[in-house]
Amino acid sequence: MGTIVINRENEVCFHNNVDYCVGTGRMGLALTKEYMDQLKLVQDEIGFSFIRGHGLFSDDMAIYHEYEENGVTKVEYNYTYLDRVFDQYLEVGIRPYLELGFMPDKLASGKQTIFYWKGNTTPPKDYSLWCDMVKSLLIHLMDRYGKEEVLSWPIEVWNEPNLPGFWEKADMEEYFKLFHNTFDAIKSIDKRFKVGGPAVCGGTDEKWISAFMKYCHENELAIDCVTRHHYTVELPEPEGHYAYHKMMKAEDGFNNLKTTRAIIDSFDEYRGLPINITEFNTSYTPQGVIHDTNMNAAFLAQQLSRLGDVNESYSYWTFGDVFEEMGVPFTPFHGGFGLVANGCIPKPTFWTFAFYKQLKKLGGVCRYRDEDIVIIETDNGGFAGIAWNTDHDTAITKNVELMDVLCGQSYSMIQKIVDEDTCNPLKLWHDLGENPYPSKEQIRLLQDASKPLIKSCVLKNTKESLPVEITINKNGVVFFEIKPVNCKPDRGYNYEKVVSYR
Amino acid sequence: MGTIVINRENEVCFHNNVDYCVGTGRMGLALTKEYMDQLKLVQDEIGFSFIRGHGLFSDDMAIYHEYEENGVTKVEYNYTYLDRVFDQYLEVGIRPYLELGFMPDKLASGKQTIFYWKGNTTPPKDYSLWCDMVKSLLIHLMDRYGKEEVLSWPIEVWNEPNLPGFWEKADMEEYFKLFHNTFDAIKSIDKRFKVGGPAVCGGTDEKWISAFMKYCHENELAIDCVTRHHYTVELPEPEGHYAYHKMMKAEDGFNNLKTTRAIIDSFDEYRGLPINITEFNTSYTPQGVIHDTNMNAAFLAQQLSRLGDVNESYSYWTFGDVFEEMGVPFTPFHGGFGLVANGCIPKPTFWTFAFYKQLKKLGGVCRYRDEDIVIIETDNGGFAGIAWNTDHDTAITKNVELMDVLCGQSYSMIQKIVDEDTCNPLKLWHDLGENPYPSKEQIRLLQDASKPLIKSCVLKNTKESLPVEITINKNGVVFFEIKPVNCKPDRGYNYEKVVSYR
Amino acid sequence: MGTIVINRENEVCFHNNVDYCVGTGRMGLALTKEYMDQLKLVQDEIGFSFIRGHGLFSDDMAIYHEYEENGVTKVEYNYTYLDRVFDQYLEVGIRPYLELGFMPDKLASGKQTIFYWKGNTTPPKDYSLWCDMVKSLLIHLMDRYGKEEVLSWPIEVWNEPNLPGFWEKADMEEYFKLFHNTFDAIKSIDKRFKVGGPAVCGGTDEKWISAFMKYCHENELAIDCVTRHHYTVELPEPEGHYAYHKMMKAEDGFNNLKTTRAIIDSFDEYRGLPINITEFNTSYTPQGVIHDTNMNAAFLAQQLSRLGDVNESYSYWTFGDVFEEMGVPFTPFHGGFGLVANGCIPKPTFWTFAFYKQLKKLGGVCRYRDEDIVIIETDNGGFAGIAWNTDHDTAITKNVELMDVLCGQSYSMIQKIVDEDTCNPLKLWHDLGENPYPSKEQIRLLQDASKPLIKSCVLKNTKESLPVEITINKNGVVFFEIKPVNCKPDRGYNYEKVVSYR
Amino acid sequence: MGTIVINRENEVCFHNNVDYCVGTGRMGLALTKEYMDQLKLVQDEIGFSFIRGHGLFSDDMAIYHEYEENGVTKVEYNYTYLDRVFDQYLEVGIRPYLELGFMPDKLASGKQTIFYWKGNTTPPKDYSLWCDMVKSLLIHLMDRYGKEEVLSWPIEVWNEPNLPGFWEKADMEEYFKLFHNTFDAIKSIDKRFKVGGPAVCGGTDEKWISAFMKYCHENELAIDCVTRHHYTVELPEPEGHYAYHKMMKAEDGFNNLKTTRAIIDSFDEYRGLPINITEFNTSYTPQGVIHDTNMNAAFLAQQLSRLGDVNESYSYWTFGDVFEEMGVPFTPFHGGFGLVANGCIPKPTFWTFAFYKQLKKLGGVCRYRDEDIVIIETDNGGFAGIAWNTDHDTAITKNVELMDVLCGQSYSMIQKIVDEDTCNPLKLWHDLGENPYPSKEQIRLLQDASKPLIKSCVLKNTKESLPVEITINKNGVVFFEIKPVNCKPDRGYNYEKVVSYR
Repeated sequence: MGTIVINRENEVCFHNNVDYCVGTGRMGLALTKEYMDQLKLVQDEIGFSFIRGHGLFSDDMAIYHEYEENGVTKVEYNYTYLDRVFDQYLEVGIRPYLELGFMPDKLASGKQTIFYWKGNTTPPKDYSLWCDMVKSLLIHLMDRYGKEEVLSWPIEVWNEPNLPGFWEKADMEEYFKLFHNTFDAIKSIDKRFKVGGPAVCGGTDEKWISAFMKYCHENELAIDCVTRHHYTVELPEPEGHYAYHKMMKAEDGFNNLKTTRAIIDSFDEYRGLPINITEFNTSYTPQGVIHDTNMNAAFLAQQLSRLGDVNESYSYWTFGDVFEEMGVPFTPFHGGFGLVANGCIPKPTFWTFAFYKQLKKLGGVCRYRDEDIVIIETDNGGFAGIAWNTDHDTAITKNVELMDVLCGQSYSMIQKIVDEDTCNPLKLWHDLGENPYPSKEQIRLLQDASKPLIKSCVLKNTKESLPVEITINKNGVVFFEIKPVNCKPDRGYNYEKVVSYR
Repeated sequence: MGTIVINRENEVCFHNNVDYCVGTGRMGLALTKEYMDQLKLVQDEIGFSFIRGHGLFSDDMAIYHEYEENGVTKVEYNYTYLDRVFDQYLEVGIRPYLELGFMPDKLASGKQTIFYWKGNTTPPKDYSLWCDMVKSLLIHLMDRYGKEEVLSWPIEVWNEPNLPGFWEKADMEEYFKLFHNTFDAIKSIDKRFKVGGPAVCGGTDEKWISAFMKYCHENELAIDCVTRHHYTVELPEPEGHYAYHKMMKAEDGFNNLKTTRAIIDSFDEYRGLPINITEFNTSYTPQGVIHDTNMNAAFLAQQLSRLGDVNESYSYWTFGDVFEEMGVPFTPFHGGFGLVANGCIPKPTFWTFAFYKQLKKLGGVCRYRDEDIVIIETDNGGFAGIAWNTDHDTAITKNVELMDVLCGQSYSMIQKIVDEDTCNPLKLWHDLGENPYPSKEQIRLLQDASKPLIKSCVLKNTKESLPVEITINKNGVVFFEIKPVNCKPDRGYNYEKVVSYR
Repeated sequence: MGTIVINRENEVCFHNNVDYCVGTGRMGLALTKEYMDQLKLVQDEIGFSFIRGHGLFSDDMAIYHEYEENGVTKVEYNYTYLDRVFDQYLEVGIRPYLELGFMPDKLASGKQTIFYWKGNTTPPKDYSLWCDMVKSLLIHLMDRYGKEEVLSWPIEVWNEPNLPGFWEKADMEEYFKLFHNTFDAIKSIDKRFKVGGPAVCGGTDEKWISAFMKYCHENELAIDCVTRHHYTVELPEPEGHYAYHKMMKAEDGFNNLKTTRAIIDSFDEYRGLPINITEFNTSYTPQGVIHDTNMNAAFLAQQLSRLGDVNESYSYWTFGDVFEEMGVPFTPFHGGFGLVANGCIPKPTFWTFAFYKQLKKLGGVCRYRDEDIVIIETDNGGFAGIAWNTDHDTAITKNVELMDVLCGQSYSMIQKIVDEDTCNPLKLWHDLGENPYPSKEQIRLLQDASKPLIKSCVLKNTKESLPVEITINKNGVVFFEIKPVNCKPDRGYNYEKVVSYR
Repeated sequence: MGTIVINRENEVCFHNNVDYCVGTGRMGLALTKEYMDQLKLVQDEIGFSFIRGHGLFSDDMAIYHEYEENGVTKVEYNYTYLDRVFDQYLEVGIRPYLELGFMPDKLASGKQTIFYWKGNTTPPKDYSLWCDMVKSLLIHLMDRYGKEEVLSWPIEVWNEPNLPGFWEKADMEEYFKLFHNTFDAIKSIDKRFKVGGPAVCGGTDEKWISAFMKYCHENELAIDCVTRHHYTVELPEPEGHYAYHKMMKAEDGFNNLKTTRAIIDSFDEYRGLPINITEFNTSYTPQGVIHDTNMNAAFLAQQLSRLGDVNESYSYWTFGDVFEEMGVPFTPFHGGFGLVANGCIPKPTFWTFAFYKQLKKLGGVCRYRDEDIVIIETDNGGFAGIAWNTDHDTAITKNVELMDVLCGQSYSMIQKIVDEDTCNPLKLWHDLGENPYPSKEQIRLLQDASKPLIKSCVLKNTKESLPVEITINKNGVVFFEIKPVNCKPDRGYNYEKVVSYR
């Protein structure tokens, strides 16, 4: 490959919103300790703003109850568990992205459920009871957490109604009814709530989003955002507990996302309306073995470099592997969605997110982006970037020439390297014998082995540009930061002498 | 190099007492938070049994006081700080190795002090007051911590009396007087206390140890051990705040240690008496720049493989860099003695100790030892060892053939690698510009960069022996463990397919 | 009341096994953070040895699975959650008392379930599959935690089979079949496992225990203990979510326990066999409002003074209020079984247990016991005890005369007082308005208000006995300790002057 | 006493700045763990904004160094310890109030030192070297912590120069020279720094402050505040290690403070200039036995109700008992200045500060203040206040009538009570025998016994005012909060029935 010339005048589009939101297993699992341990790790190292998952109204959260009094059926709400979960979220600095669903059994019109954990996915037996429940929820939350705080939490109505498993018969008219009723109920509490839908997954997304926008248009619903999902694999090949997928071409996925943008922008009043990708990942099953690999990390590095192009936000599904949709995992590495494997072991993809977050913190302006690399000029006068290798079976090298640098200035370059040789807990777990129940010592070893390798060097330019070489191994992701440095050794200290003396 | 054949019948002498004792900056520094943070790190990862340092009776510990009452001078003791320090020690699972010294100013016969922190190094003005102080100390300790507990703490009388800085005029007769008085005082409390001396450093060690043994012999002192120190560098070349040393030949040091053994064994009643090396390191100054390097780590790996040959124990001087003998360090990396740099950054040598401790935990029997490697057969039927590269400017490879292994059995091999490329915080600090006051982010980065790289693989033998290759980079130390492994994949899981699918 | 004379010769029977075992909500709840927070609090302050609860094999623990392969139904086990729970238990120093139950849905012969959380309470569809599951469990546990460790965990077969809700039709023959099969399966793994039953509750306990002993006798089952439950309230008066009970006469309960002893002792080979009360409390419902009161604490003080008389152990049902048998509680104080209310608020009864544990730690010999007080002479030459006031609407005073004390010796007396005025979080919560969702500040206040009041004084005797007065308010529990004390003020310190100066 | 009528229209002056600043032992002690443990406790419960103490430039902080190079004496600075201390401060949310002093030995013009820890209290040998040191310090701090952050830290020049021990000969002219030079040096870095003096203690305060203001006036120094100290005891009666004082009349102290205000306000350009009391307490010695008593707590409650009257701020001397001016304390309770005794035991006065902080957090407006009580109307529509009993040997009762309250409204009243019966660790320590080296168990007991007793009740008014009775025992301090409360019991819950059932 040729040399990439980085010029301080060149401003390149790059919308990095990596830390806006992340997905989670069903709300009820947030009561568990392992879940919170994993979330704390994620927040300490990455720090997302919002968290979104299913099952807020499902029966294990125990919110909706009916009882008889004097022959009359009455409703009572119980927020004991909800408060416990949300208190914990706020303690680790993350806020709920409220997905309203699924249906409490007592409020349901039917018996259809989804998943091992049996979320009811039928419409309400009575829309006014549903709306009461939604309003009561918001009022309770504002009481407990403060009005302005709760107004900052986005709201999404239901999940993937375009799949019959998630919404009985994938009945579009019924979903629009649900959406309309819910939208009105929320706005009756406070117009400033941000409400979106239709939360569809791919496949029938064009059809649903078109119809949804048309419905909103005709009913003059001033929705606040459009939500959809984004997965990038072919149909799986199942085997025992597991699913093996081939990857889609990334470009096909990006093109599909643009269709949503185009549909929305075709309505005058909705032009430029934010799109929130409220779920994305490679595979869409929690047994998708790719999730644990370095390949996933490299593929995601590319995704994160481009998902901001037409979308306001994109929420990785999910932060951790405490998740029960297909049952309880038999082993720590089982293809779960999480950035973190059970046992609080960061997977390679964890670091892809951490790297993008670190890039975001450095501020500055994007100066270059291509299919393997993104480079910014930082606020502190240096450069930083991320490079990845998704496509090659051998290492690749990116040659970069930083222009307009002071002649004779030294630069320190730090690299953080995640690849199959440096940060590959899945391989270690395999080499240790694929123990389904690792001992404490093994867990500790796996955690120790799942950190990026850190390398440093000092670069000196001899002219007014600085050549930099970044090598990325197969399925690798490399974060780099290059900063001007002026070393003033302490009196008597001579590093070269220190390390050469014998 | 040829192939090392490891035979299960071959038992090799190897006395690994790596975790018996470690050195520390003066006792008063144990009150500080940074000191305890570093000690906690050391105990969590390595876990020493005892800790030994100077200054127990120095004035910052505030133990000895005189006051006038009715014209009479009286003595009172204050154990407020002593208790605080020892409580903290016991909390992190380490016990005091009691070094009795230096002299409280009020009890001193002279004004001579040593170090930036001004420890008085003159004999007591009154030996009975000194003995009272020692006895009162032991009685207080037994009251607070229990008799049996305190009896398990070894006691050493003074430090390096063969240097005039540490003991006025290096007056041998006076030291023997101090020792004799102290020995009798301690044994008068309980005969079971373990008491040793003369705590000399090299140079005049032969002369002093000979004379000391003769003195004990003539005075029929049933001493419990002999103590001495062991440093392995040539005279330093000073420069500003720092000292640059060349290394001694390791063999010269080991030979010197054997002379002590020979002297002791020449007395019938002392033959086989334990020798405790109560201090050892490469350089003997806290500005000895070598301490922070990977070379130090590799050199120490060799030392630890042999120091147990004639000595019962050997105490690395020191666990951490909270230390003030030459003043307060100007930068985090300044050649301090510690296993840990200020900011809680493990130095490469930290891992040498951690590796030997891990080896010790695996139990088993030593099967091979040479100048670059030690190999044990573990209790669990596998093998483990440590290899290092002190002498070569390029990587070396040790070829090992493990005999008597089951044909067709798979083995998992874990390696932990500390070398200039994988675990070199000094270089990173240098590359970042040798900042004397690193920011929190830099400290965090330095900590993250000071962990061993972990590698794993599966070895399969095709005959009844297993060939293993260990490569050690320049100044590297490698820990390895090889265990039989029987991988039973979960239903449907196929690792090769997981990582090859695309 | 008259004076109680405490004589050092008088040894009184008092078997204090307060910390042997404690009950818990179903095993699956042990995955939650609030559960573990409460358990940690309990272990820090009280420290039980074992923990027993239902639902080890229930579906939320996800242990038992069936799948089809080539047309054959096969079984697989999943210990992911089990390990997580037991790892956590051992981390806080508590071990499982294994209650084997309830039935995995796939292994059940019927559909009957119990509780909000739907534990299946029907016999296995196939006893050999059940026995395989039990054996597989024990083998897994011994692999993970060590053989000797797991052998120390007691095992009980099922729970309250004499209630039709817990065991279909309360079918006694079927239970004996279950017990016999399970007993044999366990002993086939290792004869040293301790196995007991029939875990019955009151009501039909005599009938069941007689029949059970007879069955064991006839089948020559060398059982290791007999287990039963013990609740001490009349039938409840229900109202909304809550149950109001009147207390039984305590004596009736103690008499009922003696019948079990008598039945067992009537068999030669079982005479003296340990009885474990594997559940006890006042009310047997988790909405039994009495549990949160000071009255409960005082009543329990009496129970704990006598339950050891004929029983080896007695396990309070339960340590905390994370519990779902009747659904999710609507408020923090709701009459749950726990020693700790949700929000980690110790209830008064928590301190009754803490006091008995403190008494146990002091060792020594019981010198006196009546219906309101127990007094021991401690190992350290002092006295300690617990007094309570269950029966009187006003304060009572116990006058004690300690004999054989040194004339002129001072004694320090510490009292820890839990009563309606000093430690009454329920009242505080009520006074704050019975908020179902207390804020962080309110939770903190409730925690601060749920500590015993500590009082101290110095007693001086003028003759060879020491009079002591203990006053206990209505529903109060008082712990007291009396120790000889020799105050040697520091030079110049005069306490009386310090506090009188103005 | 008569009834206090609280009217919602009546606004009373009350400047509560309780949490602005707190004093500390010398900076070097901030390196210790016990110091930070105590500070963390203080910050968790009270939360001060700033911390001020001596010894920033003293030699144990090791900032100033001289060395020779080529025959020339050069200066170098070392901020290793300074950073460590300030990093720790900021971590617990407290910022330095920079007191510039004392003199590094190498920079001093003389040998005079103060205290056990030997702070040099002589003028600089060279004012330009002093100013360089001050400027270098500020530049370093701004580099490390950010410019705006450091600009918010107040600066005071030296300490108590009106005492010859603190400033050689109490030489006023020399102090003005020091002040002027330092003031100019600081302002040359950034004019926005807030600089004050002369930090005098009582006795010659009028003379010094008059002269200081005149000097500033004549030299046109735009100083930012005036600083002084405030102690309120008579001369001590010494005895052994301790000092016994009688209290001054409080009014005399308040009057003395007003003279400072008057002097400042007599200068047109300084009228209304803030006065910072940079030290206050009852006794001015760290062996002042009163500090540990409940009397001190009650006396301070009164001080805190009035110190804001003419002063912007007032800094209690000191937060904790890690303090070495008179040497190392022999016992945990020794009359140290601290809010916290060694062993992390809050003294009664700790709670006086906690109560005023809690009052401040409730916001609102002061409605009443007299010599024993202060009452505010809170932002949430309730009332809160603090009452104390400094003068009476028996309990006193304050009768309060809250006007303008809704008829029939219920109020919950919470009281937190600190008095000799409820929160008196000194007495407990005495009763336990005045152990100088308390065991862990004793420390824990002392901590448990040093919490306020919390009481609650519900008040119901029957007319449009609400009578409230506050009883304060001898030397007691009572915090109270009264809030409207609407109890809506959960379905079926009846508190009265719960607690009356038997």
